[in-house]
Amino acid sequence: MMDDRDEIRGAAASVQILSLDGARVREVVDEVATEEPLEIRVSCASGMVPLAVTMRTPGNDFELAAGFLFNEGVISRRSDIAGISYCLEPHMDAAQRYNIVTVQLNLPALPSLERLERHFTTSSACGVCGKATIEALQTRAASIEDSVRISRALLSELPRKMREAQRTFASTGGLHACALFDENAALVVLREDVGRHNALDKITGWALLNDRPPLEHCVLLVSGRASYELVQKSITSRIPVLCAVSAPSSLAVELARAFNLTLLGFVREDRANVYAGAERIVEKNAVSS
Amino acid sequence: MMDDRDEIRGAAASVQILSLDGARVREVVDEVATEEPLEIRVSCASGMVPLAVTMRTPGNDFELAAGFLFNEGVISRRSDIAGISYCLEPHMDAAQRYNIVTVQLNLPALPSLERLERHFTTSSACGVCGKATIEALQTRAASIEDSVRISRALLSELPRKMREAQRTFASTGGLHACALFDENAALVVLREDVGRHNALDKITGWALLNDRPPLEHCVLLVSGRASYELVQKSITSRIPVLCAVSAPSSLAVELARAFNLTLLGFVREDRANVYAGAERIVEKNAVSS
Repeated sequence: MMDDRDEIRGAAASVQILSLDGARVREVVDEVATEEPLEIRVSCASGMVPLAVTMRTPGNDFELAAGFLFNEGVISRRSDIAGISYCLEPHMDAAQRYNIVTVQLNLPALPSLERLERHFTTSSACGVCGKATIEALQTRAASIEDSVRISRALLSELPRKMREAQRTFASTGGLHACALFDENAALVVLREDVGRHNALDKITGWALLNDRPPLEHCVLLVSGRASYELVQKSITSRIPVLCAVSAPSSLAVELARAFNLTLLGFVREDRANVYAGAERIVEKNAVSS
Repeated sequence: MMDDRDEIRGAAASVQILSLDGARVREVVDEVATEEPLEIRVSCASGMVPLAVTMRTPGNDFELAAGFLFNEGVISRRSDIAGISYCLEPHMDAAQRYNIVTVQLNLPALPSLERLERHFTTSSACGVCGKATIEALQTRAASIEDSVRISRALLSELPRKMREAQRTFASTGGLHACALFDENAALVVLREDVGRHNALDKITGWALLNDRPPLEHCVLLVSGRASYELVQKSITSRIPVLCAVSAPSSLAVELARAFNLTLLGFVREDRANVYAGAERIVEKNAVSS
């Protein structure tokens, strides 16, 4: 499980472009974020099934696969995973080999495709509205009771810390980031991807493969906005505080409130909006008061 | 088909929040972008099938459904649609009624779910890599041969025009926008959504329901980034020039080049990067030279 070959695929690609800058036109080389499909397959004694395809930035693919399965409820603990591997069938060409990850499950049977909520067709039986969507999640995830408290001073440090960590990665301007901090605002892990949901799945998978879930007493900062999907994954990962650099959606707010997740938007150096779970945001941290 | 009841659902919702601004903490009312699931169903003489669920901002739902079906290759012309309606079954509660759209098809049979590429599991037979993804699209869409030419001066007007048009909508900071311009940079139609792909599907559906495809001699400006999915939908909509306010991904660039779509990124008042199809970007428009 430890021979993740992510390094062989770049998170950025170089392309020859035409740069228009006022009256100036130049041929230059630009770096763009790599986007490639990843097929996630699961296998157990009874067989193998392709579960999902996601457009992602190569890198930390095993984390992505493990985190996706965890957040979608296919697995619930590290020991449900017997192994993870790229699908290196000899008949496949080089471009495809590292775009298929198979997770071997220690489960008696393969999950049914209908169980997976995300991006799949549903039957109308379970309802099609925000309330029904929230109720569906409540059947498999509990409210968040985490007692962590984060001070406003610590909150204000997070955007700068994430930006500094991102600077160590290829700077394409095209990658979303998720940064996990501990309750003292120390960066624990950062993941980037063209898809924010993938970056969060990678964080979850990182925690799972390092035997660290549930993710208690921590804060997650995400670039861009907070959608229903990001809040859902934060809840299933048991992250108590989710901060977004930009705006949340209505359903993100409703879902956070239903599960007692602390949700902040427009988190900048000196300000933030608290949309849910305000009791976890305090003026001073207990240790520093 | 014309009794689209979008107006009854708001594109924004008001929520009570805590605003943290330096040392100041206030309870205020904030506007957030509405996000609700939309189930798209198709029906024909042989039956009915739910095809997809997308998290979207209510509004222009019929356009979204029609555009989605067109861009995914389920329908290829306006006359393939016999009618579009909300699914107002009396046993459904108010929250759900306007989250299901059924498109009646003038087709002999229902489309097979396997035909739909997006967000669904695939078999490995068709390959899992950028190249295979592009080849799959080539089986149902041709290269773009549009002879339109856009001057750099006209290009530079687009971001301001889109921002001005967005100002007439609820300002939540949480909505993506797609703006369609004609070859003289006059705004034709603007659509907003929490999902960029939905905003583009709404543009395609608008054109289809108004008997305007193919979308020749036009320019589409999208907020944020250009992913594979947005380039794919631009190609199936036959839009010749796609401009993004932010960065494209590697696969977006590859796909644009494979289909001769003109792709620009980082389009700002005085600058832009041309990633593909540079021959359509000229110093001066023919009419104004």
